[in-house]
Amino acid sequence: LPSAKVLVIDRNSFISYGACGMPYYVSGDIENVDKLRETPYGIIRDPEFFRSAKDIEIITETQVERIDREAKKISCTSTKTGESSDLSYDKLILATGASPIQLPGIPKNSKRIITFKVLQDAIDLKKSLQLGEIEKVGIIGGGFIGCELAESFGSLWGADVVLFDAAPTILPTILDSEMAKAVEVYLKTEGVEIHTDCPLEGMTESEEDVTIKTKDGLFSVDYAVMAVGVKPNSGLAVECGLKVGKAGGIIVDDAMTTSDPDISAAGDCVEVRHFVSGRSLQLPLGSLANRQGRIVGSNLGGGDERFGAVVGSAAVKIFDMNVASTGLTEASAKDAEFNVGCVWGTFTDKADYFPGAENIHLKLVFDKTSSRLLGLQGYGKGEVVKRVDVFAALLKNKGRLEDLLDMEFAYAPPYAPAVDPLFSLGCAARNSLLEGVEALSPQISLDDKLIIDVRTAQEFENKPFQKGETLNIPYERIRERGQEILKDKDLICVCSKGVRSAESLRILKEKGFSNVSYIGGGVFMIPDFGEE
Amino acid sequence: LPSAKVLVIDRNSFISYGACGMPYYVSGDIENVDKLRETPYGIIRDPEFFRSAKDIEIITETQVERIDREAKKISCTSTKTGESSDLSYDKLILATGASPIQLPGIPKNSKRIITFKVLQDAIDLKKSLQLGEIEKVGIIGGGFIGCELAESFGSLWGADVVLFDAAPTILPTILDSEMAKAVEVYLKTEGVEIHTDCPLEGMTESEEDVTIKTKDGLFSVDYAVMAVGVKPNSGLAVECGLKVGKAGGIIVDDAMTTSDPDISAAGDCVEVRHFVSGRSLQLPLGSLANRQGRIVGSNLGGGDERFGAVVGSAAVKIFDMNVASTGLTEASAKDAEFNVGCVWGTFTDKADYFPGAENIHLKLVFDKTSSRLLGLQGYGKGEVVKRVDVFAALLKNKGRLEDLLDMEFAYAPPYAPAVDPLFSLGCAARNSLLEGVEALSPQISLDDKLIIDVRTAQEFENKPFQKGETLNIPYERIRERGQEILKDKDLICVCSKGVRSAESLRILKEKGFSNVSYIGGGVFMIPDFGEE
Repeated sequence: LPSAKVLVIDRNSFISYGACGMPYYVSGDIENVDKLRETPYGIIRDPEFFRSAKDIEIITETQVERIDREAKKISCTSTKTGESSDLSYDKLILATGASPIQLPGIPKNSKRIITFKVLQDAIDLKKSLQLGEIEKVGIIGGGFIGCELAESFGSLWGADVVLFDAAPTILPTILDSEMAKAVEVYLKTEGVEIHTDCPLEGMTESEEDVTIKTKDGLFSVDYAVMAVGVKPNSGLAVECGLKVGKAGGIIVDDAMTTSDPDISAAGDCVEVRHFVSGRSLQLPLGSLANRQGRIVGSNLGGGDERFGAVVGSAAVKIFDMNVASTGLTEASAKDAEFNVGCVWGTFTDKADYFPGAENIHLKLVFDKTSSRLLGLQGYGKGEVVKRVDVFAALLKNKGRLEDLLDMEFAYAPPYAPAVDPLFSLGCAARNSLLEGVEALSPQISLDDKLIIDVRTAQEFENKPFQKGETLNIPYERIRERGQEILKDKDLICVCSKGVRSAESLRILKEKGFSNVSYIGGGVFMIPDFGEE
Repeated sequence: LPSAKVLVIDRNSFISYGACGMPYYVSGDIENVDKLRETPYGIIRDPEFFRSAKDIEIITETQVERIDREAKKISCTSTKTGESSDLSYDKLILATGASPIQLPGIPKNSKRIITFKVLQDAIDLKKSLQLGEIEKVGIIGGGFIGCELAESFGSLWGADVVLFDAAPTILPTILDSEMAKAVEVYLKTEGVEIHTDCPLEGMTESEEDVTIKTKDGLFSVDYAVMAVGVKPNSGLAVECGLKVGKAGGIIVDDAMTTSDPDISAAGDCVEVRHFVSGRSLQLPLGSLANRQGRIVGSNLGGGDERFGAVVGSAAVKIFDMNVASTGLTEASAKDAEFNVGCVWGTFTDKADYFPGAENIHLKLVFDKTSSRLLGLQGYGKGEVVKRVDVFAALLKNKGRLEDLLDMEFAYAPPYAPAVDPLFSLGCAARNSLLEGVEALSPQISLDDKLIIDVRTAQEFENKPFQKGETLNIPYERIRERGQEILKDKDLICVCSKGVRSAESLRILKEKGFSNVSYIGGGVFMIPDFGEE
């Protein structure tokens, strides 16, 4: 319906900006805030742009107060003038987004205690940084925003950053604990102080500072950023009787229509269904919001587009580390009652001999009964995201381990090893099912075990692995020196990346050892020992 | 069968090396040739390594002369001593690879006219470069090796490179002509002289130089590299009566068994089936060879692994440009009698505001009748390969255009735009089917057309597009200024990347213009005009 009259109402003054780029404006990677508001060819996406280019009218600084579904009217108030007005609609779209979760015990209206949600937050924060007012920052919440801001504050501005999370590890929605621990270790090497398992107990503000009260003690900072997550802005929907889900988001069908056929909803205010777990959840991701918006527009224009269940692909860059995930974590897969199997692997992202090849560390989660793929998560300085994106495509087709072995990657040494990491992970998982070569988590306790470190003597010498009793027998010598090992011990093979140790395990099994296992991903993935 | 005795016979002296890395050894990116022969942890993969680590015996510099299938014996000759010997087998694996195609009229045994296939070739070539013997090189063949070597010679050694191809454009197996032309333009800016449509007519060698005779004249060079492709080494197979295909490769079933149940084959010597076209072809890619080798080994060890049909993903880095492709090109799709539709697009690989975002140029090939995805090809300085890899996963599941719209990419500004290029291409293709917004090839003739350039006045001024009669009406003004355009002309809308022009086309159609089309991918993809 190109002839439809479209009216957009927003309570803020800035519209249509790249909110996900805000941390990079704060960090200085993006100098001018207008970059986040421009089209790629340099035109600001302001109301005038939408009017002339798209024939869409936009009213800003106006709060919608109520929806009268029977009369098909909305009541608005101008946040500038306080003036009220009623507007009628044929079709209504709710794109109210989500708001930062407020914790109790936090001073209200403080200039030093901020959330980071709308563009004005980023503008204010950067001003303070430029004035040199921020030397020490507390970040409450180790999710995407918290981790990105840790980099923003630390990298360019040299501020001291203390990050708090109530959960046992950071990024719990996308990383299992052993993976998150490794990322935490990396964050620490970048100078970030981290306190996990450390719920906020309160905050006070004085002229000079903000005091953060936690289980781990009191912390005095110049600024505190609240980034403990968001909740859907579904208040308007609730008030007018639309169906809202357990996660607090508006319930929509796959055409993005709410329980009222004349009202659609899209973005962070709705709930989506997870393709793998089947559960309804709120998943505030810009990429999903974009797709949903397009579907609503298309359907109101007479189209028939559907928004299917999601696998929840997400990525975050933290300093030089790439972190990404899709599907279920081990924890969420167990929660969804799959028969969960896991394998880990450390790989170079390009051919190992190619200059600039970097390691990536991946964890594959699958169902042991059906061989179905359930999730992939990874971190590392190398190309993690590509593998997650390919995996997401397989997930969406209910892929199985066999599909990883059948995948084709566009191979050349600058892009991938000849045998891609996903292929190798698939093999490791199949070997665990078919041959019992089961991997141990890199986080496993090594007490009372005999560790067979099958790295070369050189590797062992450079970085000795000495958690418990360790014997260094290089992989190339395992066949001949296997008899040196006493058969009455529980053995754990370990190498740098998990390949030689898995192979050694098989050789030792041939030689009659039955009590052998290996550490997935190798020493590179063991938190507090690994490389990064 | 871990107890099986495994014997490997190779006619060369070097075994198990990263042949795909050879161009990077020549270029100097890899300094020591041993890097191509080592495990990632620094152990040379020589016969001793295979003996001790894997209990495999390797005989090098030995040519297999004959296979006696009835007696289950092979006859060998040592290339060092000339001694002959017979060996018996229970199971035989042919991994004979492929050899460079020899053209007639080329002097034999010349030190200045070389092929580039085995490690010794790379070692010899680099020696000559280091001695300063090579100032001007002729490369015959614009395939992967030819293009990679153009970079190797040009980038580090500063040699003048002339590249010849008998076909109308380079890389014809993975790029359609308009895509290849753009890559050729880029190669020229890097100093490579290119002669396409230019079959070799002969070559002569003197004390001082090599003279290359072509349709375009005589070229004097210091060295000539023959890189016109490879043919499978299936001679042994043919002689002993194994089934060989039209493309000259050994025919195997999906367990990689030849027509003799005791003989398997894998690698560049076999034919594979194309998943999309259904045809049998020889596809010499290291990534496929690796997977096939694993399947043969697994099956001979009692496993039941299958090698399915392939989509033929391939990638090549040429200077700073990434080129990749999967599935069918437009040309091969037409040849396979699909009802072919194409769309093009120029995109940033990351969020457009993110520092370091680079353009990529993609072409999507699909079937207009079924909406089935057929192929994707791309080039650009940005991340092309990820999109090709994801697309390959969809191809392997017989994906349709709808699947592109349903894909989830792990999004953060450093990794992708919020709306991924593949999503945008899917929309463009659907718009062409559902709304008749059909894209024109960037290679289209623009004579006798009125061109509506909808870029901003600034963009137009910086790089005026003046192929034929052109009117500059910025996209934001098309609604109000549409009436300036005379309705009796055939209109072609063009912008920088193809988005604004497609949108303008829809606006003009609403205003009653019926004779409007747009250029896919924008001016950035028009050869001889585009950016790269």
